[in-house]
Amino acid sequence: MNKKETMYTIGLDYGSDSVRSLIVNVETGEEVAGAVFEYPRWKKGMYCDANKNQFRQHPKDYLEGLELAITEALKQVSAEVANQVVGISVDTTGSTPVAVDEKGVPLALTHGFEDNPNAMFILWKDHTALQEANEINELARKWEVDFTRYEGGIYSPEWFWAKLLHVLREDPAVFRAANSWVEHCDWIPGLLTGRTRPRQLKRSRCAAGHKAMWHEAFNGLPSEEFLMALDPMLGGWRERLYSETYSSDVAVGKLSDEWAEKLGLSTDVLVGVGAFDAHIGAVGGEVAPYRLSKVMGTSTCDMLVVPMEEAGEKVVEGICGQVDGSIIPGMLGLEAGQAAFGDIYAWFKRLLMWPAERILAKTNIVNEEQRELLIQEMADQLMKELAEEADKIGIEESGVLALDWMNGRRTPDANPTVKGAMAGLSLGTDAPRIFRAFVEATAFGSKAIMNRFLEAEMRIDEVVALGGVAKKSPLVMQIVCDVLNRPIKVARSEQTCALGAAMMAAVVAGEYSSVAEAQEKMGSGFEHTYHPIPEHVEKYERIYKSYQTFGQLVESGLSN
Amino acid sequence: MNKKETMYTIGLDYGSDSVRSLIVNVETGEEVAGAVFEYPRWKKGMYCDANKNQFRQHPKDYLEGLELAITEALKQVSAEVANQVVGISVDTTGSTPVAVDEKGVPLALTHGFEDNPNAMFILWKDHTALQEANEINELARKWEVDFTRYEGGIYSPEWFWAKLLHVLREDPAVFRAANSWVEHCDWIPGLLTGRTRPRQLKRSRCAAGHKAMWHEAFNGLPSEEFLMALDPMLGGWRERLYSETYSSDVAVGKLSDEWAEKLGLSTDVLVGVGAFDAHIGAVGGEVAPYRLSKVMGTSTCDMLVVPMEEAGEKVVEGICGQVDGSIIPGMLGLEAGQAAFGDIYAWFKRLLMWPAERILAKTNIVNEEQRELLIQEMADQLMKELAEEADKIGIEESGVLALDWMNGRRTPDANPTVKGAMAGLSLGTDAPRIFRAFVEATAFGSKAIMNRFLEAEMRIDEVVALGGVAKKSPLVMQIVCDVLNRPIKVARSEQTCALGAAMMAAVVAGEYSSVAEAQEKMGSGFEHTYHPIPEHVEKYERIYKSYQTFGQLVESGLSN
Repeated sequence: MNKKETMYTIGLDYGSDSVRSLIVNVETGEEVAGAVFEYPRWKKGMYCDANKNQFRQHPKDYLEGLELAITEALKQVSAEVANQVVGISVDTTGSTPVAVDEKGVPLALTHGFEDNPNAMFILWKDHTALQEANEINELARKWEVDFTRYEGGIYSPEWFWAKLLHVLREDPAVFRAANSWVEHCDWIPGLLTGRTRPRQLKRSRCAAGHKAMWHEAFNGLPSEEFLMALDPMLGGWRERLYSETYSSDVAVGKLSDEWAEKLGLSTDVLVGVGAFDAHIGAVGGEVAPYRLSKVMGTSTCDMLVVPMEEAGEKVVEGICGQVDGSIIPGMLGLEAGQAAFGDIYAWFKRLLMWPAERILAKTNIVNEEQRELLIQEMADQLMKELAEEADKIGIEESGVLALDWMNGRRTPDANPTVKGAMAGLSLGTDAPRIFRAFVEATAFGSKAIMNRFLEAEMRIDEVVALGGVAKKSPLVMQIVCDVLNRPIKVARSEQTCALGAAMMAAVVAGEYSSVAEAQEKMGSGFEHTYHPIPEHVEKYERIYKSYQTFGQLVESGLSN
Repeated sequence: MNKKETMYTIGLDYGSDSVRSLIVNVETGEEVAGAVFEYPRWKKGMYCDANKNQFRQHPKDYLEGLELAITEALKQVSAEVANQVVGISVDTTGSTPVAVDEKGVPLALTHGFEDNPNAMFILWKDHTALQEANEINELARKWEVDFTRYEGGIYSPEWFWAKLLHVLREDPAVFRAANSWVEHCDWIPGLLTGRTRPRQLKRSRCAAGHKAMWHEAFNGLPSEEFLMALDPMLGGWRERLYSETYSSDVAVGKLSDEWAEKLGLSTDVLVGVGAFDAHIGAVGGEVAPYRLSKVMGTSTCDMLVVPMEEAGEKVVEGICGQVDGSIIPGMLGLEAGQAAFGDIYAWFKRLLMWPAERILAKTNIVNEEQRELLIQEMADQLMKELAEEADKIGIEESGVLALDWMNGRRTPDANPTVKGAMAGLSLGTDAPRIFRAFVEATAFGSKAIMNRFLEAEMRIDEVVALGGVAKKSPLVMQIVCDVLNRPIKVARSEQTCALGAAMMAAVVAGEYSSVAEAQEKMGSGFEHTYHPIPEHVEKYERIYKSYQTFGQLVESGLSN
């Protein structure tokens, strides 16, 4: 007989394309079941316009996913396991806000706004609010209190206020109909607990602090005067939003009757305060003091936690924010990131695939089936072959230097207008040499972020790597390791976001008294550790200086 | 009956890989026969080491070519035509000098030096004398008379004195055995006339003035003191070389008995003073005052002739030299050029072909024959497809900016250490956008040269384009035309070098009293004229400024 019954929690991870559920054994961290639901409207490209960088998601995509991702996972386990689920926590992309009515219903679910993209969730990567972000930055520069201070000093078009202001300007009908605005990560816990009314919602500290200029030093959101100066229509909005925020160890409430029935779970299940995917992913990847957590995928999200007493009054400039409790309760959570990482390698692959897509695709030398197989084979093999050859090139050998700003620069010191560049090209420069230069450039971009933390006296002893690139590319990882001059541990779990949410749910449910304890018991550990190679470190220190010089020249010298 | 018998001349064009003969009707310019002989030792890669940029050619390659190229061409015509040949003129690559004995025999043809690369012709593109060129430049900067003044102010490792000095240092045995040094373009006319002894040779004004710092203002070559300061071993060498030089309208002499017999020609045939291929090619392409002649191939050679009375004391800085009579007798001949032009497009093609060469080449989806056909098809189609897509991209649309210094910069202001670069890359930048940016960069490189002429008050009304790129790439030509803002005429003849040599031979033989007259009668004219499109001109003026800025940033800011 078990001395103690085995308990389970559910982590729910809303990504950009799909939502994933994971049922985890609270005692062992075993991932016993999971399911993925792809957003059907999003998949069809509805409500989006890539040319305008408009990316919207319909609340029905999230709603259907909420039910199906959890019920599909529960089908894979016994009724006993379902009965032993004690908590659910959620992470989502962000800032991904939506305008809601007085009941907290997203306007796209209300009459008259069903197909209006401005009444839907505005996905993190939507860039329609460029102009409004500029306005916010200009005003912030002039204001006596710098409300962007704890968000790195530069407000992004991807963030809450810029998006709200954009809809105010572009679609007054939506703005007038809105009672409040809600982040995706706040809406889902509200739904599950039946507490969606704007004033009932427990707002995420993570979302508020990193994206909405909320800070204790400001007694909450930016002042009424600041908001009115931005636009008189914002008058009263500070009140209509929120002043309190919560870290993710706090329970929003218990599962509502409605959702308990829909999901087949008990109404005793506790639902935690939501947070952003990268932050919760860092928890799943066992982030801890002095350990920089890097989610390395198409872009990177670099997170660090520092005990509050150690952080003191230190402010790290030019990052995406520092917020008390945004990652782990009681600790300062710092976020930074590169706007493109794996995306740059994918770009180079697309570049090299051009002749195949263009010429091989219409050849008559082989039949249609062979054509497709050949193109597929090239696409499948290319990164491996490039990495293999790039690995043979000595550091400093090719003389090719690149800048990793193909998608602008997020941190340090956000500048969305800068671009990628290359120097040192000769007639002998081949594809592997260019590939290696871009791998080095992305590693230098990582170093620029780490250095910014170090310059602000934030200690970093080692790096934890999560995400696709971390698991799939040893060449990239060793170069990043050599450039950063820190050991890099690669997290074992494939699903650190959903796992982190399950850990948080275990804390919320009272199974553990701290996140650290949940991490210790439920963590999957690390599958591999990279160690810096001293002679590489030394060479990369030299090349990093050239990278910095090149960056300064291009950024300050070229206007385009 | 003809009032006047039809006369013929032979133009002999020694290129980097082969020698070509052309028998031309002096009255009409009709190219009645021709033959090409590829250098057999060179083709095998003998005496070369690409890693060291060592490129040497054995005199036997030239000797065998001399006989076979002419006799093969003569086989194609009647004995009557052979009897009516009145002149032969020669052009060669340069500076391509060789150490010779007291009889003017290249040392590689003498006992003990048969396989010694230092005893062979040192091809123009050999870069083994980098260090020696630096020494010459350093000394020239300090000397009271600037002997590099008429060669653009910077002495190149590709030129006569650097190569001589390099052999002096590296191979004292060769240096000691040498009685003199001779350019390829001087040796061939010497051979044909039996006047190879160093003091009998009629040295080319073109070679001496552009590559050996010969100038009337210096009374010939650089002073004894200067040469002694360079290396005491050079003492006496000014005397052992030459003080007189000749333009290519001058006859070296008549065909020797030996060569008349070998070739099956009369001993009455006059042989002209030789010159460099690009200069003679400009003559064949009907260079004339106010007409910039651009040989556009892997690299470019840009030539301009200016009436001496108009040139006055003007000096164009940072080009490859300005020499009285080096192109057309009585006119100042100015030479400049880009170190890489078509080579850059070929580089980009190689880059894009990497996946095919690497993955398609070993696929098992199709058989070996199909593999080869597929790769061949991609290689054959790629430039056409790239040009087609690049043509659709609006000017200023992509924001990609490139520097064309992949092979260093020859002019203006030689700098062999600068490299190619790119800026303005985004995740949407595709292969045609990069290709177009490099086409624009090569055009900007052309403009930088043209502007240098214009700044020195040398008038340029139109451009004549010769060479492979000129005939094959309308996209490139229109962009160059728009960037230069000058009409560009494309020469009709495929063989402007050999044709130019035949024109020169007609002047040497007294068939015409001037080069202009020979050009008028024997020229093939132009097959197409490009005209600048005003709205393109304006846009490119803006982008050219960015190109200059980018170039300055990279050249002065990046040390590598």
